[in-house]
Amino acid sequence: MLSQKMLALGKKSSAIREIFEYSKKRKAEIGEDKVFDFSLGNPSIPAPKCVEDAIKDLLTTCDSIDLHGYTSAQGDMETRRTIANNIGERFGFAADANLIYMTCGAAASLTITLKAIIEEGDEVILLAPYFPEYKVFAENAGAKVKVVACTGEQFSLDLEALGKAVNKNTRAIIVNSPNNPTGAVLSEDDIKGLAELLNKKQAETGRAVTILADEPYRELAYDGVFVPYIPNYYDNTIVCYSYSKSLSIPGERIGYISVSPRAENAADTFAAVCGAGRSMGYVCAPRLLQRVAKECDGAAPDLTAYDKNRKLLYNSLTEMGYSAVYPDGAFYLFVKALEPNAAEFCERAKKYELLLVPSDSFGVEGYVRIAYCVSYEQIERSLPAFKKLIDEYKEN
Amino acid sequence: MLSQKMLALGKKSSAIREIFEYSKKRKAEIGEDKVFDFSLGNPSIPAPKCVEDAIKDLLTTCDSIDLHGYTSAQGDMETRRTIANNIGERFGFAADANLIYMTCGAAASLTITLKAIIEEGDEVILLAPYFPEYKVFAENAGAKVKVVACTGEQFSLDLEALGKAVNKNTRAIIVNSPNNPTGAVLSEDDIKGLAELLNKKQAETGRAVTILADEPYRELAYDGVFVPYIPNYYDNTIVCYSYSKSLSIPGERIGYISVSPRAENAADTFAAVCGAGRSMGYVCAPRLLQRVAKECDGAAPDLTAYDKNRKLLYNSLTEMGYSAVYPDGAFYLFVKALEPNAAEFCERAKKYELLLVPSDSFGVEGYVRIAYCVSYEQIERSLPAFKKLIDEYKEN
Repeated sequence: MLSQKMLALGKKSSAIREIFEYSKKRKAEIGEDKVFDFSLGNPSIPAPKCVEDAIKDLLTTCDSIDLHGYTSAQGDMETRRTIANNIGERFGFAADANLIYMTCGAAASLTITLKAIIEEGDEVILLAPYFPEYKVFAENAGAKVKVVACTGEQFSLDLEALGKAVNKNTRAIIVNSPNNPTGAVLSEDDIKGLAELLNKKQAETGRAVTILADEPYRELAYDGVFVPYIPNYYDNTIVCYSYSKSLSIPGERIGYISVSPRAENAADTFAAVCGAGRSMGYVCAPRLLQRVAKECDGAAPDLTAYDKNRKLLYNSLTEMGYSAVYPDGAFYLFVKALEPNAAEFCERAKKYELLLVPSDSFGVEGYVRIAYCVSYEQIERSLPAFKKLIDEYKEN
Repeated sequence: MLSQKMLALGKKSSAIREIFEYSKKRKAEIGEDKVFDFSLGNPSIPAPKCVEDAIKDLLTTCDSIDLHGYTSAQGDMETRRTIANNIGERFGFAADANLIYMTCGAAASLTITLKAIIEEGDEVILLAPYFPEYKVFAENAGAKVKVVACTGEQFSLDLEALGKAVNKNTRAIIVNSPNNPTGAVLSEDDIKGLAELLNKKQAETGRAVTILADEPYRELAYDGVFVPYIPNYYDNTIVCYSYSKSLSIPGERIGYISVSPRAENAADTFAAVCGAGRSMGYVCAPRLLQRVAKECDGAAPDLTAYDKNRKLLYNSLTEMGYSAVYPDGAFYLFVKALEPNAAEFCERAKKYELLLVPSDSFGVEGYVRIAYCVSYEQIERSLPAFKKLIDEYKEN
């Protein structure tokens, strides 16, 4: 009497969620400051001031009916125009406001886009390590998921493996840079190589392969590292954006889908996006937040705190002897587990009250993800625990 | 290269949306006040004061990270407890906060619930006239839609026809009272009769039939009319609620699903709801608005304006000779078209700048829906046009 698929999905809580629940319990037992919870990617720095200013201003200047009323399903046109203009100014790319669809955040951007472009039997390529929900979203759209591992210490694109994986059934590839869980940023050469490969494959098979550029961490890049804007390099691109991390408002659910005007059948693709949103009950993105997005698009949080955390954690752990991907973006450190089985490593870390996420659910083995969007003090306090953990392994 | 279903859905804009676009064009041509647009169900009275107060208060008292952070997928527990308590106090029904799932509005409540409970081949019954998107939502969940017409001048339940329609494939029936498009409110006798019928059918087939009680208009009932709370009468009920109309915030997308604790497999049903929301990318309902819902749950807008509109429109039109359903709730008047073909009637109405929605997309023929959530002045100004329209028919 129930959808068995949905029941299974609802019962199987994610690995991250389970750690979160354990963390709550453990903190109640031994005290908040004794537990070093590095599991959740919940921003720890406040929203930029423009967010609060925008909300206050809207409450004062807009009348209630206009402020809280429906927008068209695609979203408020002024917001979409602002976003398109900003893309033009920031990335030198001529985005089209008519091909921008406002969404309830990155997850909605992805599920709607996948549902719009996937036909039964199509394949979607994920690049491991990947955000675990990609698999849920792609399969929900009826796609078969194919995983291609990234390569090397910095998890770069493995173009050779990708070349073998792409075939006539391939419909899309999800690219996430800056990356969750590694913090790696794909270089311009990486993107150029990928574009060249996909263009060649498209010519061979006669079939469009779309890059879904999942970009919630675009604004979280350190030391001025260059984050290439993929539509500048590859025509069949759909950008899935979210303001969750850039504006530190993950609970408010606001983002957008931007179909490249250079994509094959761009207008029809956009129509299918509208159809997919409609079929899933996405009437419009939250109105007040659409207006906040208009005022704050392109803003970034004060990254100083994340950057300090990043350096402290990376430097301290590597000094102790851990090996980690140097993160150019996002707020995650991807660290090699000290034994092949990441889950067992995490269990041993728990003894020292360190709560880490094993890499298995990200599609690779032998690593842990440490979310450093926590307080600097938590990292400082946790360092002796990390030291004891590695010492334990050295002794055995 | 696209989902043909989604493309078709995206291209085929709804009848209401088309009128809305025509209205914008026509207003630009001849002036705002010359066009009598009765097409959209967009609330025209401001949000109750508690909404603005709550937002302002939250901005002042909450810190940014807590205010805009993720909640669990099910939603903020305090909000869910408040809702459950209020249901207890208002309807004498013991709702369970653990079975309440916060959503992005009524459409999300319905798509998530349908996806949770439908298996391929199941049937969903719609009672005509019905909100057109029900069909889209049910089919998206993989259900076959069966339409059962209501009966009589007031569109009451036709229990005999329903008895014939329910079979072993029937999984759910969507009940919408107060009703869009008729404004009718189902009586206690109606609900008791329906419950009796479904209980008998369940016993016969051995299969649960769930009532999806779509209740966005619950708070919009006039003259103290009694709107029965369906879970009090029928165990297998899931309430799909939205604050869009009660708080006049349709653009903000906030509502909830409440699974009756008396429903068969209530806990598993709730788990499947969580799975369905997850699969469609509903990470959590907008956080700020969840808190607004906590503060304002059970509040109603000042209905005086809608009530005045209702009386003016109903009395004036019936006096002229139109025949209409007397609306006890919502903000729609369902009027008999003056010729069998409602679409052609609407075309003739257009000559007098009256924009009405033909009933065909609601699953019945020969009626028009007039949304009276407009200004009183618009109704006053439109009356001569309605008079000319009926005179034209009298003359021919």
